[in-house]
Amino acid sequence: MDIQTLRQTHPDHWMRATAIRALTLDAVAAANSGHSGMPMGMADVATVLFANHLKFDPKAPRWADRDRFILSAGHGSMLIYSVLYLTGYADMTLDQIKAFRQWGSITAGHPEYGHVAGVETTTGPLGQGIANAVGFAMAEESLRARWGAKVQDHYTWVIAGDGCLMEGVSQEAIGLAGKQQLSRLIVLWDNNGITIDGKVSLSDVTDQQARFAASGWDVFDCDGHDPVDIDRALTAAKASPRPALVACKTHIALGHAAQDTSKGHGALTDKAQLQAAKDSYGWTGGAFEVPAEIKRWWESLGAKGAKARAEWEARMAALSPAKQAEFARIFALEAPTKLAATVRAVKKQAVADMPKLATRASSEKVLAALNPVLPETIGGSADLTGSNNTKTADLGVFTAEDRKGRYVYFGIREHGMAAAMNGMALHGGVRPYGGTFMCFTDYARPSMRLSALMGIPVVYVMTHDSIGLGEDGPTHQPVEHLAISRATPNTLVIRPADLVEVAEAWEIALTEKTRPTVLALSRQNLPAVRKAHTAQNMVAKGGYVLAEATGKRQVILMATGSEVEIALKARETLEAEGIGTRVVSMPSMELFAAQDEAWRKRVLPAGPVRVAIEAGVRQGWDRWLLGERGREAKADFVGMSSFGASAPMERLYAEFGITADATVAKVKALL
Amino acid sequence: MDIQTLRQTHPDHWMRATAIRALTLDAVAAANSGHSGMPMGMADVATVLFANHLKFDPKAPRWADRDRFILSAGHGSMLIYSVLYLTGYADMTLDQIKAFRQWGSITAGHPEYGHVAGVETTTGPLGQGIANAVGFAMAEESLRARWGAKVQDHYTWVIAGDGCLMEGVSQEAIGLAGKQQLSRLIVLWDNNGITIDGKVSLSDVTDQQARFAASGWDVFDCDGHDPVDIDRALTAAKASPRPALVACKTHIALGHAAQDTSKGHGALTDKAQLQAAKDSYGWTGGAFEVPAEIKRWWESLGAKGAKARAEWEARMAALSPAKQAEFARIFALEAPTKLAATVRAVKKQAVADMPKLATRASSEKVLAALNPVLPETIGGSADLTGSNNTKTADLGVFTAEDRKGRYVYFGIREHGMAAAMNGMALHGGVRPYGGTFMCFTDYARPSMRLSALMGIPVVYVMTHDSIGLGEDGPTHQPVEHLAISRATPNTLVIRPADLVEVAEAWEIALTEKTRPTVLALSRQNLPAVRKAHTAQNMVAKGGYVLAEATGKRQVILMATGSEVEIALKARETLEAEGIGTRVVSMPSMELFAAQDEAWRKRVLPAGPVRVAIEAGVRQGWDRWLLGERGREAKADFVGMSSFGASAPMERLYAEFGITADATVAKVKALL
Repeated sequence: MDIQTLRQTHPDHWMRATAIRALTLDAVAAANSGHSGMPMGMADVATVLFANHLKFDPKAPRWADRDRFILSAGHGSMLIYSVLYLTGYADMTLDQIKAFRQWGSITAGHPEYGHVAGVETTTGPLGQGIANAVGFAMAEESLRARWGAKVQDHYTWVIAGDGCLMEGVSQEAIGLAGKQQLSRLIVLWDNNGITIDGKVSLSDVTDQQARFAASGWDVFDCDGHDPVDIDRALTAAKASPRPALVACKTHIALGHAAQDTSKGHGALTDKAQLQAAKDSYGWTGGAFEVPAEIKRWWESLGAKGAKARAEWEARMAALSPAKQAEFARIFALEAPTKLAATVRAVKKQAVADMPKLATRASSEKVLAALNPVLPETIGGSADLTGSNNTKTADLGVFTAEDRKGRYVYFGIREHGMAAAMNGMALHGGVRPYGGTFMCFTDYARPSMRLSALMGIPVVYVMTHDSIGLGEDGPTHQPVEHLAISRATPNTLVIRPADLVEVAEAWEIALTEKTRPTVLALSRQNLPAVRKAHTAQNMVAKGGYVLAEATGKRQVILMATGSEVEIALKARETLEAEGIGTRVVSMPSMELFAAQDEAWRKRVLPAGPVRVAIEAGVRQGWDRWLLGERGREAKADFVGMSSFGASAPMERLYAEFGITADATVAKVKALL
Repeated sequence: MDIQTLRQTHPDHWMRATAIRALTLDAVAAANSGHSGMPMGMADVATVLFANHLKFDPKAPRWADRDRFILSAGHGSMLIYSVLYLTGYADMTLDQIKAFRQWGSITAGHPEYGHVAGVETTTGPLGQGIANAVGFAMAEESLRARWGAKVQDHYTWVIAGDGCLMEGVSQEAIGLAGKQQLSRLIVLWDNNGITIDGKVSLSDVTDQQARFAASGWDVFDCDGHDPVDIDRALTAAKASPRPALVACKTHIALGHAAQDTSKGHGALTDKAQLQAAKDSYGWTGGAFEVPAEIKRWWESLGAKGAKARAEWEARMAALSPAKQAEFARIFALEAPTKLAATVRAVKKQAVADMPKLATRASSEKVLAALNPVLPETIGGSADLTGSNNTKTADLGVFTAEDRKGRYVYFGIREHGMAAAMNGMALHGGVRPYGGTFMCFTDYARPSMRLSALMGIPVVYVMTHDSIGLGEDGPTHQPVEHLAISRATPNTLVIRPADLVEVAEAWEIALTEKTRPTVLALSRQNLPAVRKAHTAQNMVAKGGYVLAEATGKRQVILMATGSEVEIALKARETLEAEGIGTRVVSMPSMELFAAQDEAWRKRVLPAGPVRVAIEAGVRQGWDRWLLGERGREAKADFVGMSSFGASAPMERLYAEFGITADATVAKVKALL
């Protein structure tokens, strides 16, 4: 439908939707930066969605049973900022709109979770939002099954562009959602036929509707400017028993000189063209001016949601106090009171048994104890369940037939799994963890970075964490991946050495509220190294003295995970030769760095030579070897400087020189 | 078709194909590790492919016009090792088969490029092979268009499993191939319905044929055990004017107790079950024994290829000597003689002009000079052509209609682009480079790692390389990505500071033969810092003295790329206060580390305090700040320790303290 027809046939709708367009044009012009075309193209769809379909209450942006709205095409951030302002979200003031993309404003270039009430997830890296949405919808299904439709009963809506659909992660999301029959998930595709480089047809001929249908979705389409047609399609999509795609045929940068061109994707800042666009809309207000009656109409939309919320609150109040408290607890990410005691019991038993176990197997043991205590956990694996040891007996399997199941077979979809876990964590009420091989964190990287950027406590169970996996060879052997995770801000990396450290690591991961945890776990069996019970969580200190030097302390050996055993062996040899050697277990550099200086100096006093042992690259270790300012110690490193190889693990450790003998030799060279 | 029927109706084929099964069972049993089920399931398809369709000559594994065979389902490595042994590839001896997955053997757990003649690409990380194959097919189309069908005229065949098709990167590959109408690309899908966790239906309901058809592929199917039906389908696929998928219905671990189960995916080592399987096959030989007549038949298959190769060589010999030399040059990755002179000319002009340019714009300038000199380059971008500055006027666009074009619109497919570039480089005859934002190296990581592991000279043009990109905010601002690339073995990272350094960086990247290069380029404008012409490529030294201290040298400032400007400013302030300050430009740590000790000590003598400035995390810098063994210098770092933010770039540098003033303050604190 063209602008003239729209203005004539749907004048009220037209001006309401055009408020989004006008604010977008003004904000992008003020910032001299941003993306105008998408909000201008999808304004009509967004208006119909918020007016007739989305369950929301601007007064209660965190209301647990709201519909979730996800702008997967995050570059079109002015769409959501405009709507949040128009509908009356308290923190989205006109001043914020005016400060679009400026230091200190909440209106960042791309929508950021935690900055803005009403922004459910951080988007911009394409494909993430649609893949997050699968996790949102799974969390809703899980909670609805367990708490009943009176407590959880909502939809997840997504606006996605061609960029989102071209990214591979979208296929993983589509496949997972189709299999899981997530009928409350609705994707509104901004089908404008334009990408940055030109027409979509420059790089793709995919029939998107056929593609979604092939993975078990229902597909619909509409004229993305005609409010009646949009409403019909959205109504049909809601009724579908499967996840639904609505292909919304739109014009990017509608009404602007750049309409239907790739130029329309970016920042439209030419003043004359801006004015001409407003003129064609019949929009007469000045910059950032929205007519009062239009603003009132938008603000009135929250009333329906406010009523629904009041009803929901009444239903919640009718629950038993214990249930109310439990619901509040899981959404507040509070650990259950039993967690600490359960971890302690596992640790005590571990010290009694001293099992020789791979840390991935230790992890399963710990999860078997903790999952029954934490009903909020949802576990899974990217098709490596038996190898990642992520499934415990009590979980059941999450399927379309059993929504109470808490284990997800994610399929061979590391990226989709990570993005879905982000969505689950963001939805709230569940605590997701998921496994793959450490090396394949590569596949999940974009979503793992977003876990960190958003500050959400997803747990990545990364097994087969070194050349110790053996014969599968260098394609499967992580070498640089500990360094990669440690280089990423706000990411907690823990590489435990035995069952006790694994139990402590899980306690930390499951009480985190503001960052993801990467657990690096071994394929190979490891001896127990913590031989006396401590009530204190030593992993929480990051690094601590595992074995002290006898006599004069000349050497400090540091190691993590599977290499702690090697450090202890090297210490034996050195001590036998009269060289006093301390062994520091350093399961988490981030936690160690967060300790006060007194602790760090107690564990790593200046003076003794230092050698670190880790079956990965050195990068990241120098801070602890050499001291932040340098000159603390002479130091060396035993680890990898190349990719691995295919052979039994004992041979690999010997060939790559990650042994007690090699450690002793390096120590002696420094003394 | 079941085993009994097959044995009766196609007895010769049956025993030939079963040679693959028997060798697989024996090798996996000997290694007590590996994946038996896939080779046992796909043996019939592989036999028909090698017997009737694949153009290959075991005597000339690198023959430029061979068909390429890619085992995307790389865990089934015994399939390709068996076939290479059976057909008589010289280095694939029976001893190698017996040493499957052992140290020093070429028969690694997953097929590795460079270890084994006949292995065209390293696979194992799922989805990579099918995405590489798109690059192979594009390279063939490009060379065929430019050299004629007498020189290049071959197919690219892929065996892919459900894992490959579930990985998101497969969608990017399928979309790109469909758009490009790569009719010489044929994917044989091992449709066995099984993954590691169980049935495919546990995690996916996708109708794969409908999915491929939606992206412009032709689709076929066959009984993957019936040789006649397989042959029919492969013949039809070859005739298709579009890329073709052949769904081969197979039984994983055919004939073994574990047939059609997820257990069949892994290592089948039970001796009694192994013998029972062989019995059901009618296979009477001992371990690793192949009846002579069957071996002879397999060896005879190479004759057809040898004849085709002889004819091809005759055709090549008829080309002009110059053309022959040029063909040999591009396949040997030799730089053209004009490259060095062209780079020198750009450098001279740069010193004359001293333009203030973003290094991404400098990169375009350099490419505009070099692309006409290197006909082997194929450039592209993942839908950020104008931002990555990767397209130069002479390239033309590679499309189904114009195969001579040398610029690829890869679409919003960073991962697929990287994998396709790997495929192009592996095919030979072309040198691919491709761009995206530095932050989205995350999406391409799995393929970038494989560029490094395989040792192939793909060039990654990563622009917008820091918070300097400004308003797009932290989702788009790399912080940890330089550290990530530097942590990856065999990866060359170059972050040039101005047009001269960019020219030198490209000269290095385009003469590399054995590793990928990551070029980190700025969005923002930067001043010229190299003000005098040097014939020598200074970037090739990795780090060098850009500005020397006057008087006593008390301080060494190190910086890369956009922060060299800040180092120079800080030096001015310090020098004005009488503090002798050297500035070292350090565009590449890998190249600097490769210099002899004398150079490194000349550039970084022990003693003066050191401060490094880079708008990324510190990780990776300590080696140069503190010295490998420590105690070299007191040192500090000016950079990022958190994610960025959305604001104009000048503000971000000020807020995050990456300024000349902050540098001066840190220096003074150390003095």
